[in-house]
Amino acid sequence: MSSHAVLPQGEPHPANFKPKDNPAFILYDKLKTGYEEQPIPELGPDEVLIEIKKTGICGSDVHFYNTGAMGLVALEEPMCLGHESAGIIVQLGSNNVVGKGALQLGDKVALEPGVTCRMCTDCRGKPSICEHMVFAAYPPSRGGTLQRYYKLPADLVYRLPSSVALEYGAMMEPLSVAVHAVANKGGMKTGYNILIFGAGPVGLLAMAVAKGMGANRIVAVDINKERLDFAKGYAATDVYIPIKQNENETRPQYSVRAAADLLLSLGIPARGPGSIDLVVDATGAEVCIQMGLNAVKPGGTYVQTGFGPPDIQIPMFRITTNEIVIKGGWRYGNGDYPLAIDLVNRGLVNLQPLLTHTFKFKDALEAFEITKAGKDKDGKFVIKCVIDGPE
Amino acid sequence: MSSHAVLPQGEPHPANFKPKDNPAFILYDKLKTGYEEQPIPELGPDEVLIEIKKTGICGSDVHFYNTGAMGLVALEEPMCLGHESAGIIVQLGSNNVVGKGALQLGDKVALEPGVTCRMCTDCRGKPSICEHMVFAAYPPSRGGTLQRYYKLPADLVYRLPSSVALEYGAMMEPLSVAVHAVANKGGMKTGYNILIFGAGPVGLLAMAVAKGMGANRIVAVDINKERLDFAKGYAATDVYIPIKQNENETRPQYSVRAAADLLLSLGIPARGPGSIDLVVDATGAEVCIQMGLNAVKPGGTYVQTGFGPPDIQIPMFRITTNEIVIKGGWRYGNGDYPLAIDLVNRGLVNLQPLLTHTFKFKDALEAFEITKAGKDKDGKFVIKCVIDGPE
Amino acid sequence: MSSHAVLPQGEPHPANFKPKDNPAFILYDKLKTGYEEQPIPELGPDEVLIEIKKTGICGSDVHFYNTGAMGLVALEEPMCLGHESAGIIVQLGSNNVVGKGALQLGDKVALEPGVTCRMCTDCRGKPSICEHMVFAAYPPSRGGTLQRYYKLPADLVYRLPSSVALEYGAMMEPLSVAVHAVANKGGMKTGYNILIFGAGPVGLLAMAVAKGMGANRIVAVDINKERLDFAKGYAATDVYIPIKQNENETRPQYSVRAAADLLLSLGIPARGPGSIDLVVDATGAEVCIQMGLNAVKPGGTYVQTGFGPPDIQIPMFRITTNEIVIKGGWRYGNGDYPLAIDLVNRGLVNLQPLLTHTFKFKDALEAFEITKAGKDKDGKFVIKCVIDGPE
Amino acid sequence: MSSHAVLPQGEPHPANFKPKDNPAFILYDKLKTGYEEQPIPELGPDEVLIEIKKTGICGSDVHFYNTGAMGLVALEEPMCLGHESAGIIVQLGSNNVVGKGALQLGDKVALEPGVTCRMCTDCRGKPSICEHMVFAAYPPSRGGTLQRYYKLPADLVYRLPSSVALEYGAMMEPLSVAVHAVANKGGMKTGYNILIFGAGPVGLLAMAVAKGMGANRIVAVDINKERLDFAKGYAATDVYIPIKQNENETRPQYSVRAAADLLLSLGIPARGPGSIDLVVDATGAEVCIQMGLNAVKPGGTYVQTGFGPPDIQIPMFRITTNEIVIKGGWRYGNGDYPLAIDLVNRGLVNLQPLLTHTFKFKDALEAFEITKAGKDKDGKFVIKCVIDGPE
Repeated sequence: MSSHAVLPQGEPHPANFKPKDNPAFILYDKLKTGYEEQPIPELGPDEVLIEIKKTGICGSDVHFYNTGAMGLVALEEPMCLGHESAGIIVQLGSNNVVGKGALQLGDKVALEPGVTCRMCTDCRGKPSICEHMVFAAYPPSRGGTLQRYYKLPADLVYRLPSSVALEYGAMMEPLSVAVHAVANKGGMKTGYNILIFGAGPVGLLAMAVAKGMGANRIVAVDINKERLDFAKGYAATDVYIPIKQNENETRPQYSVRAAADLLLSLGIPARGPGSIDLVVDATGAEVCIQMGLNAVKPGGTYVQTGFGPPDIQIPMFRITTNEIVIKGGWRYGNGDYPLAIDLVNRGLVNLQPLLTHTFKFKDALEAFEITKAGKDKDGKFVIKCVIDGPE
Repeated sequence: MSSHAVLPQGEPHPANFKPKDNPAFILYDKLKTGYEEQPIPELGPDEVLIEIKKTGICGSDVHFYNTGAMGLVALEEPMCLGHESAGIIVQLGSNNVVGKGALQLGDKVALEPGVTCRMCTDCRGKPSICEHMVFAAYPPSRGGTLQRYYKLPADLVYRLPSSVALEYGAMMEPLSVAVHAVANKGGMKTGYNILIFGAGPVGLLAMAVAKGMGANRIVAVDINKERLDFAKGYAATDVYIPIKQNENETRPQYSVRAAADLLLSLGIPARGPGSIDLVVDATGAEVCIQMGLNAVKPGGTYVQTGFGPPDIQIPMFRITTNEIVIKGGWRYGNGDYPLAIDLVNRGLVNLQPLLTHTFKFKDALEAFEITKAGKDKDGKFVIKCVIDGPE
Repeated sequence: MSSHAVLPQGEPHPANFKPKDNPAFILYDKLKTGYEEQPIPELGPDEVLIEIKKTGICGSDVHFYNTGAMGLVALEEPMCLGHESAGIIVQLGSNNVVGKGALQLGDKVALEPGVTCRMCTDCRGKPSICEHMVFAAYPPSRGGTLQRYYKLPADLVYRLPSSVALEYGAMMEPLSVAVHAVANKGGMKTGYNILIFGAGPVGLLAMAVAKGMGANRIVAVDINKERLDFAKGYAATDVYIPIKQNENETRPQYSVRAAADLLLSLGIPARGPGSIDLVVDATGAEVCIQMGLNAVKPGGTYVQTGFGPPDIQIPMFRITTNEIVIKGGWRYGNGDYPLAIDLVNRGLVNLQPLLTHTFKFKDALEAFEITKAGKDKDGKFVIKCVIDGPE
Repeated sequence: MSSHAVLPQGEPHPANFKPKDNPAFILYDKLKTGYEEQPIPELGPDEVLIEIKKTGICGSDVHFYNTGAMGLVALEEPMCLGHESAGIIVQLGSNNVVGKGALQLGDKVALEPGVTCRMCTDCRGKPSICEHMVFAAYPPSRGGTLQRYYKLPADLVYRLPSSVALEYGAMMEPLSVAVHAVANKGGMKTGYNILIFGAGPVGLLAMAVAKGMGANRIVAVDINKERLDFAKGYAATDVYIPIKQNENETRPQYSVRAAADLLLSLGIPARGPGSIDLVVDATGAEVCIQMGLNAVKPGGTYVQTGFGPPDIQIPMFRITTNEIVIKGGWRYGNGDYPLAIDLVNRGLVNLQPLLTHTFKFKDALEAFEITKAGKDKDGKFVIKCVIDGPE
């Protein structure tokens, strides 16, 4: 009677692998960082080992660096930072055969840094909310990717086309957040008119995804004119700086007025053909959320992907009588990385303008400081910093 | 070359129709009502004329009666009240042939009282948000159904099975609101665990729909023990009266604690098998909305069908990181009336316990006063008052 | 008590309208055509009158011309031909006000030529299968659009952007068939790999839609190399001429082999990343249907939009064990015309290469003969003939 | 830096486990069976070991027994038969902690016998078509469940409520096939009218699922009156034996006529309210498939779950112009076992009438012979035989 394993058995490949050292960039406490040697990870049968070559810095990394926490999640013990990474496969688990279609030693890959349990009911369909998720550089955690070696299950490692450089591979992580919000949760369709709050990295990437997927109008809202100028040159068709709030009006009143002003000043109807089909908020700010929920068309969809105060006031009467749908969008799920890579590979999303600064591994701290400041030493606008792997 | 009309042409049926008078129950101003004679409606080719036999009183009717307004909508001129009705077809438009399957003179029918434009993009799929909706007894309006004769397009008139009495036919309107919230927006599936806030008419009907559609646990929340006792005997499997808010906690903090207490005290897990798949709020109260959004499982659905303050604070961080979906549910849409009638016809929903009081047409005012009070003269709990048509 | 109509009342506009004559191109019997004067249509309140300027010829028109029938549908009496049309609005029904957003006299419009009953359950969501559909030049019918004047409900008339010429407006009808198959039924998503059988007008338009919506690989299959060369230059990324059937193999055996050859010769995997997500058959030929159902990936979708023999053999064992979904796609439905117009307006679909021949109204017969032949007098490949309205 | 495993680590539990022998019922070649000792399976960290107590016989088991093959799949080497099983957990893998909610030693469980790879793209959403599926007693395979011990990943093992006896736990496998076809693929909703071909075990279970989920009419079609009598007493509301085919009509012609006769004789309209929303074919017979596709309403859904000839002729013209959807349904997927167990636990599906025969493990061959014959020695109708585990 036959009894074989789930995946075709291959030879393990430790023989090919001569590990170097494994230095890591560690956060000890807020604003306290340093380098430390880590053990080389040992692979399970379905895992692969990646030598990290590029790691982008995310807002959440800077939050942890700056405050030791993000939202309700706090640093529990020293933690290696970083989770937006790309690298080269240096070792395959025993279930990975070198063959057509499968991952191979030397492959250039992007990393999906959230390891789910694959055993709970959420993992069957909604892996991003798996309660057993172990996410890179998110406590409690196995540590981040700002080290030389990192292991992942083989299906969370995506081969990059030859046209996509490693630094853009590292940006597949935030791009997948944008894909998740716009395509997966937002149900983006060709011809949609989309309103995006926040022209930071995730907001800009959401605009790029909308453009790459055939959106009609892409309206960017921010309070920073420099960011909006960039957005206009990048992927937005329209930009809007909110009008000022009057002293004698409440925030809900203001939000209704600002939403109306946005639509009127851009010539966008409040409903029917040409109206806002989809709103994505990448700020978390209450005023943006309220404006978005007042600007979306009746029957439209609103996706929350940014973080701000934990409790937010929303126009529930409008939502009810206009059958608006609000969806939380958290990280990414099935199909988001492949679509992100496909959009970049086919030139439908251009990551190049967003990558503003690169650093050596030894200069990781400087990358954090510059991201935190939002400007580099020459006053140049920072969008995305990417750090090389250890030399 | 043939050229025929959209629907098979039939003989008009005015010959069969000997109109009586058409008295109507009119709201002139808040708390000011009276009776007035109305013209007999003239039918368009796709319309039918119904002699109204039973009309239920809805919370919105009482709002208009009591305050002259509901939410942002106010009485503009004298208005005939009533929109929950059933009656008998007394005249057919010229496009209605007497034949198999079609409506016939003498048919016992329930009325769907919202007439949409059939021309806008929302009417193609989401008729309840049609901006040209003309809804009975909802200003600006053609007037309500508390009169002898009412006309509607033939497809908004649903034949009642012989087993369903006219008073229950009148209750198809609020039952369709419940079907819309639970089945259409909530995506109710066999085995769901559902949490319903508010044990008034719509909340109770939502419980009945959930039960009739095979829900597993149906948890009713209210602050009124008498209502919950009724709910338990009617369709709820579990009931819960919220714990008290502490002085030193904010409402969001309290809502988290109350949601946790609800789950713990009923032995309901916060996620995974047995957790709350769907929440329907039929109160509009901020504290209920917050509790519901804290109690629903990650990845679960929350439907807002009740009305309260226009702006409501919600736990957006939880919604985002747990990918919760919020949907506004407004009135009813495609397929809701047929499912409501089917559930009653097959005994899956029992309306009989909810119909607590009946009145003659001449006593309509008393029905409004008793509904407003929530108790009748003997202190008996009022759920639904139904008023006969004119004699 | 107010009682107003569903749509804002406007002045009727007969005063503006000085009708000319209304000549029509009539099919009396197979291959027997002629011109005949028709009455000027009288408008209902929600209708508009269009002066037809351009009408494309469809395969079904040629079927009726050539055989007096199409499939199970036969000519019952003399019928005006034509249903792919664009024109100018010359009269508005009384419910159409001249105002912002609404249709106006002089508007350049595309016509959706299927008038549904708006009263049956299918009309609520699936209008293309309304059993009361009255479709232009499809018996029994009100006649086609090859005449000067044609009336339609206002919501079936779509204003064309200034950038879209009338001849391309006439092609919105077949383009909407392609949109319906690819986007609406096929659920086309950015990055899909799509396999399309038939490089005639609808197949080519399906390729164009797939390209405009961001498909990755678009594989065209036809037995005619000239058509495939055109497809390759137009919208296909890959083309394939089926291998020959062996004498000793059955058609099902052959279809399996041909599907495998197609995938192998184009380097397309049978499943997983890069495999065929969606198949659209625009031929109706049994061998194409079988090939398509053998080539689509497990879990993939197959859409039937072309017509051939009424009964077709399919590989049901494969369909069952691989959970393939087959969908019939008939004409168009909600949202298809707007997306078609949007794709053309934004340059995502280029109709210009498909419009190969134009004719005067008096030369309509020649247009039919040339479409039937598939080549013009100079041997040039015919894709789409468009006929001017009467002068 | 913390680094912990995906699931909370528990103590392995080999100490609790004193294995007995592991006898298995083996198929050596068609009609050649015997008993053989098997090694005790060794658990991986996420697996559990079950002592098998009850195993039902499936049609596919009998196919392998009788012919050495099923469809295109043939016995490659001696194989332990059986895959419809329930038992008791006797050992937990190291990742399973004994705690609230988790599986525990001694738990009574149903087994989902298809082990997927959890690494391919199909596993993310459509596990039943995973190409690396290892399915019990389906070559190439790890062997079936007709042995004492069987191991599975913990999430494929479902705890049975105390009210559900082990023999009904064994029937969760075919019941999940029915749930998959009716609920998951068919999208069954309360009030649907459903037509089911075949009154064997899967067809009867499909009727039971439809009934338990609130179907309105449930029409059973079979050529065997005895089966239909049983179906009528069990879960069908209507039964139908097809009329005879005339000599002068083709099978497609006959199928149209038989479908029309079915509808007419049962008073079912061909479309609109009361028509057939969903067809499930559990026979695989071409004539049933054709009848079903002719009887389903326009816009309706047809699900294929039974197996017959690999190639089947279908009425493609009707499918296209009526936008019918055909879906292959293969085994079960996410959520099917839980719903199956829930339906039985709450009394919405009654399995008791279907369990007609039970056997000792030593009499397994007799169970196969009787299932094959379809009648027992006393001429009694066989529906489901269940075999005890080894003593």
